Amino acid sequence: MKTINIIGSGNVAYHLIENINTLPDFRLQQVAVRSKEKVLDLVSGDLIVTDIKNLKPADLTIIAVTDDAIKLVSDEIPYQNHLVVHTSGTTSMQMLNDKNRKGVFYPLQTFSKSRSVDFKNIPLCLETEQENDLKCLKVLAQQMSDKVYEISSEQRKSLHVSAVFVSNFVNHMYAIGDKICEENNIPFEILHPLIQETAVKITSLSPEEAQTGPAIRHDEKTITTHQNFLTNETFKNIYKLITESIQNV
Amino acid sequence: MKTINIIGSGNVAYHLIENINTLPDFRLQQVAVRSKEKVLDLVSGDLIVTDIKNLKPADLTIIAVTDDAIKLVSDEIPYQNHLVVHTSGTTSMQMLNDKNRKGVFYPLQTFSKSRSVDFKNIPLCLETEQENDLKCLKVLAQQMSDKVYEISSEQRKSLHVSAVFVSNFVNHMYAIGDKICEENNIPFEILHPLIQETAVKITSLSPEEAQTGPAIRHDEKTITTHQNFLTNETFKNIYKLITESIQNV
Repeated sequence: MKTINIIGSGNVAYHLIENINTLPDFRLQQVAVRSKEKVLDLVSGDLIVTDIKNLKPADLTIIAVTDDAIKLVSDEIPYQNHLVVHTSGTTSMQMLNDKNRKGVFYPLQTFSKSRSVDFKNIPLCLETEQENDLKCLKVLAQQMSDKVYEISSEQRKSLHVSAVFVSNFVNHMYAIGDKICEENNIPFEILHPLIQETAVKITSLSPEEAQTGPAIRHDEKTITTHQNFLTNETFKNIYKLITESIQNV
Repeated sequence: MKTINIIGSGNVAYHLIENINTLPDFRLQQVAVRSKEKVLDLVSGDLIVTDIKNLKPADLTIIAVTDDAIKLVSDEIPYQNHLVVHTSGTTSMQMLNDKNRKGVFYPLQTFSKSRSVDFKNIPLCLETEQENDLKCLKVLAQQMSDKVYEISSEQRKSLHVSAVFVSNFVNHMYAIGDKICEENNIPFEILHPLIQETAVKITSLSPEEAQTGPAIRHDEKTITTHQNFLTNETFKNIYKLITESIQNV
């Protein structure tokens, strides 16, 4: 039975704790948080510390805090020569303090506390300095998820940029659609099936094959009509730029 | 039993024919296409005409051709005083020739011939000049789909612009993510779960509530890192513009 310490209480930390609680071969040893209330529904009070200095050594320590805090938090860990990983898509593994063995455990998913997630379907991107630590991390990852990848710090950086495009920017496209619907008294739900089909389509076609619409058809008449329709200057510029990009890929 | 003529053999026409063949209260009377081969797997040869002039009057005629051809095709219909609709998201109902009663039957979905679609889940946007025709169109639409909406020409125009954002532009975000992955030897499938979750999320949260990522967090350090990472100028400009838009909504 391996022991795990978690530092943090944000969305990633919360879902990790929830999941570790269900694993037979791993035991949540301690959780370090700023305020106890955030995880009291998942962890019994005696396992929670509010000062990182009070953590006891564990086989694995997972730092699930904001990117800016990773360095500081890893400096404060009171033990050494143990495996310490962070969960960030953008932070280099080298940002972790040298006193412990370094690694990364990056779950590539968008987390909201209010939505439960099926960890089995979340790609876990692993990286460690030492080969042996990778084995340990893999055992944990494979108990949590069916999708485990070895991804270097350099690859992870590019993966995070891709994720911003396919998730954050995609969601903003939804937000613009929502706003246009609202202004024209159309229920946004009318677009839900199209949104779902567009997302499902690329599991069987490449995005290039799946591209439809006035831009790829070079239907300049419709493109002009749409641009004239848009009164919001930012939306108009986005329409223009993405249309050009579709036509030039 | 009402009769239906279909003009066209593109993706929308194809899926409509496929669906009408399954309905008990409607009968496909004739199909007008340029080349017979395209629909021979769905329609027996004697029902197919290659000249619109050879169509016989039907209770409903559905013009499912490219936007530019709608006017011409509706001019060529050899009968009058029957209900004739088009299936376009962008074309005004008034584009149809005055000799017949006008309407619109716009299925709001992205169609590929190679993917079968579940019509039950496709929103059908209806519009007619005459109240009685709307009733007829509704009967057909409700047998095909659970999602039937009355949408005016003006609303349909805005709906189509929204659809370009939430589907065509979203797919282009996928294409950019795919490209970045490819350049860094990462399998694009690693992003599939994130893509699916991002799409499913907005069925329970508004896009505004669902927004995550460096832009909405005003995480300028990550934003700068990402922009420096992107060597493709167009992708860099898209990153910049959408980030600004997320921050200003």
